[in-house]
Amino acid sequence: MTGRHDAVDVIRTKRDGGRLSDSQIDWVIDAYTRGVVADEQMSALAMAILLNGMDGAETARWTRAMVNSGERLDLTGVERPTVDKHSTGGVGDKITLPLAPLVATCGAAVPQLSGRGLGHTGGTLDKLESIPGWRAALSPAEIRAQLNSVGAVICAPTDGLAPADRKLYALRDVTGTVESVPLIAGSIMGKKIAEGVDALVLDVKSGSGAFMKTESAARELARALVEIGDQHGLRTTALLTDMSTPLGRTVGNAVEVAESVEVLRGGGPADVVTLTVELAREMLRLVGVDVEGAADPAEVLASGRAYETWCRMIRSQGGDPDAPLPTAAHRQEVVSETAGTVLRMDAYQVGVAAWRLGAGRARKEDAVSPGAGVRLLAVPGETVAAGQPLFELYTDDLDLLPGARSALAVAVEVGEPVAPTTTPALVTDVIRGSTG
Amino acid sequence: MTGRHDAVDVIRTKRDGGRLSDSQIDWVIDAYTRGVVADEQMSALAMAILLNGMDGAETARWTRAMVNSGERLDLTGVERPTVDKHSTGGVGDKITLPLAPLVATCGAAVPQLSGRGLGHTGGTLDKLESIPGWRAALSPAEIRAQLNSVGAVICAPTDGLAPADRKLYALRDVTGTVESVPLIAGSIMGKKIAEGVDALVLDVKSGSGAFMKTESAARELARALVEIGDQHGLRTTALLTDMSTPLGRTVGNAVEVAESVEVLRGGGPADVVTLTVELAREMLRLVGVDVEGAADPAEVLASGRAYETWCRMIRSQGGDPDAPLPTAAHRQEVVSETAGTVLRMDAYQVGVAAWRLGAGRARKEDAVSPGAGVRLLAVPGETVAAGQPLFELYTDDLDLLPGARSALAVAVEVGEPVAPTTTPALVTDVIRGSTG
Repeated sequence: MTGRHDAVDVIRTKRDGGRLSDSQIDWVIDAYTRGVVADEQMSALAMAILLNGMDGAETARWTRAMVNSGERLDLTGVERPTVDKHSTGGVGDKITLPLAPLVATCGAAVPQLSGRGLGHTGGTLDKLESIPGWRAALSPAEIRAQLNSVGAVICAPTDGLAPADRKLYALRDVTGTVESVPLIAGSIMGKKIAEGVDALVLDVKSGSGAFMKTESAARELARALVEIGDQHGLRTTALLTDMSTPLGRTVGNAVEVAESVEVLRGGGPADVVTLTVELAREMLRLVGVDVEGAADPAEVLASGRAYETWCRMIRSQGGDPDAPLPTAAHRQEVVSETAGTVLRMDAYQVGVAAWRLGAGRARKEDAVSPGAGVRLLAVPGETVAAGQPLFELYTDDLDLLPGARSALAVAVEVGEPVAPTTTPALVTDVIRGSTG
Repeated sequence: MTGRHDAVDVIRTKRDGGRLSDSQIDWVIDAYTRGVVADEQMSALAMAILLNGMDGAETARWTRAMVNSGERLDLTGVERPTVDKHSTGGVGDKITLPLAPLVATCGAAVPQLSGRGLGHTGGTLDKLESIPGWRAALSPAEIRAQLNSVGAVICAPTDGLAPADRKLYALRDVTGTVESVPLIAGSIMGKKIAEGVDALVLDVKSGSGAFMKTESAARELARALVEIGDQHGLRTTALLTDMSTPLGRTVGNAVEVAESVEVLRGGGPADVVTLTVELAREMLRLVGVDVEGAADPAEVLASGRAYETWCRMIRSQGGDPDAPLPTAAHRQEVVSETAGTVLRMDAYQVGVAAWRLGAGRARKEDAVSPGAGVRLLAVPGETVAAGQPLFELYTDDLDLLPGARSALAVAVEVGEPVAPTTTPALVTDVIRGSTG
């Protein structure tokens, strides 16, 4: 702590367009964590930050204060270089599931502290919890042991990690102050720096199904994230990727686990394979692991060796990788009314449909339905006949079907292409930090 | 109530620079009053309003929602036209004390619902409470009865009046969201419209001792206030007045009552007399009371008849107008170090000195010292000798003197005038509503 401040003075500084000093930032985050700065004061400050911004140095200090609000995960006993991936969230984004065991198989250690879904984007922990027996909560000692024995862990953040961020995130959610690049960047990087990894690869998505709707907004966020990584000596790379169309052919929980297993066995949808391999290559590059020839992630994935790591990772957390996955009570198809080419498949609307079927939660305390979700039976560029199924819907509650169908009715466009259809690039740019 | 909304949607609308709909405003104020919208949501909205503004129609609706959050004072049984004055606050601003009985003597009824001091500006109720026996809290029935029997009431707002404003005002105070013209305007006019008077005269002050430091900021607020009055059918006039120098020669509680009594007896400082008479003329004009010849407030004040009304008003609220006023335990002078002309007497610093001596409060729950305060022994334009007293300080606690002296050391400037000194105009402009 350096100095004492008054909450109103800190708020006024940012409200009037000024820079917050290091001492103001350290004080306000610490005082908020201790309950000395009240929620209503922090939300006014968050709104002032959202509207008046923070520069790179302020954002870096804000992030540092988030890290300092709690403990850091101690990874010093881990024998291999450690690297993590973070995605800003999307529809059908199950990439963490094949990626963590793949990168572990290639020789790095992957402590993947993940979250749950809220709104139309899914959560990695929700997906894995559809595997019978699997548990998300591990102690720091269990995380370290599993990183040495298996090489990959996907689990919930430990309690002591960045408590100020947890408190602020919940506050921003109810006060319309989520959409601030410096606050988003501070929240993401605060958690990742507290994790204590050697390197970090960010999957920053844009498009209807992403948090950032435009590529320029995603690029601004990616730059802010990489800059914070640089300032904290964390090797960081951001990939800008497309989220206008769902990733893969499944959106939900158990259905996404099943698709991830297909990918780990050397099959699965091409877009999921491509993105998994691209992210793995960058993660391995950052920690100096050779990816030439047979060591290339694409080869490792095709060989099935990453699937063996997956099975050991799931078993190590109490799960049975061979157990049948839960299925929903009801299944229903949505068919195309016309013949033609699938021109558009809107990620946001498909995400909303899966959420409405029970795959997601409206409030933090809600449970998700493991079997609920959507399967895409046709994707952009494919042709369909009139009456041919476009989607298969899964739910435990028939009353949820009309809401999901109405979202899907506006999700897909079938017609005659005006020009030859070209699949947009999945990875549109790579932004590397100066320490990467 | 028209429609249901979500707090986050309302916040986002204003955050993103949009207009709040009537239905959003009605809902958010009502829901906040009922505790459905939380303090942290309202403070985020207040910050968004402060930074992105509200237009005239939004501000008028906001004010209406404040009024509708509680009861209105029922003045239908009052036989005379009713008119009130509101000052945005200043140093030595005791004008309400002579003004209310003066206007009542001239034939209107004045229900003056007043506040307490916070920070460097004093509060009318604090001043009157230095009169032995006087009580600030009256019921609506007592207010009506006294308006018919005496013609003037100065008292605390009744509990049911604009409860949303009371709640929001306390919130804005701790969240750096006080300085918003639409929120200030809504707060002032919400209370005054709920009071149910026929007409309202506003004393909008600017200068170091005022809330608005510049005349242009005061003018913006005055226009917003008059516009709201117009939209609610309340005859409203705003006088723009100077608050760079304290009003009169006393700043405190009992000392200001004593000076007000001098004015009511036909004496007192010229600036207090001038402003009292100007405000009285405008109040009477708005409710159609003739102010020609002997009916002119200046004549009524000089005649001593307003003093009789004062005595009846004080007695009607349990006070003894003849009782000696409390005095402070200690008295100390501040002398001029040099000879010359008083060039400047800073209202803000004099206000701070009086506050530090015990005349004001730092927190709402603090008590004020009735005898504490400052007397100005010289004012701008007067010449002083070296060693001649400039101020007399009154306090119950000798430890408070050094803090007050340090404020006064920078409050006054004595030197040789570069040009003949001219007293700046006290009333710089009059802004009348279209219904006035």
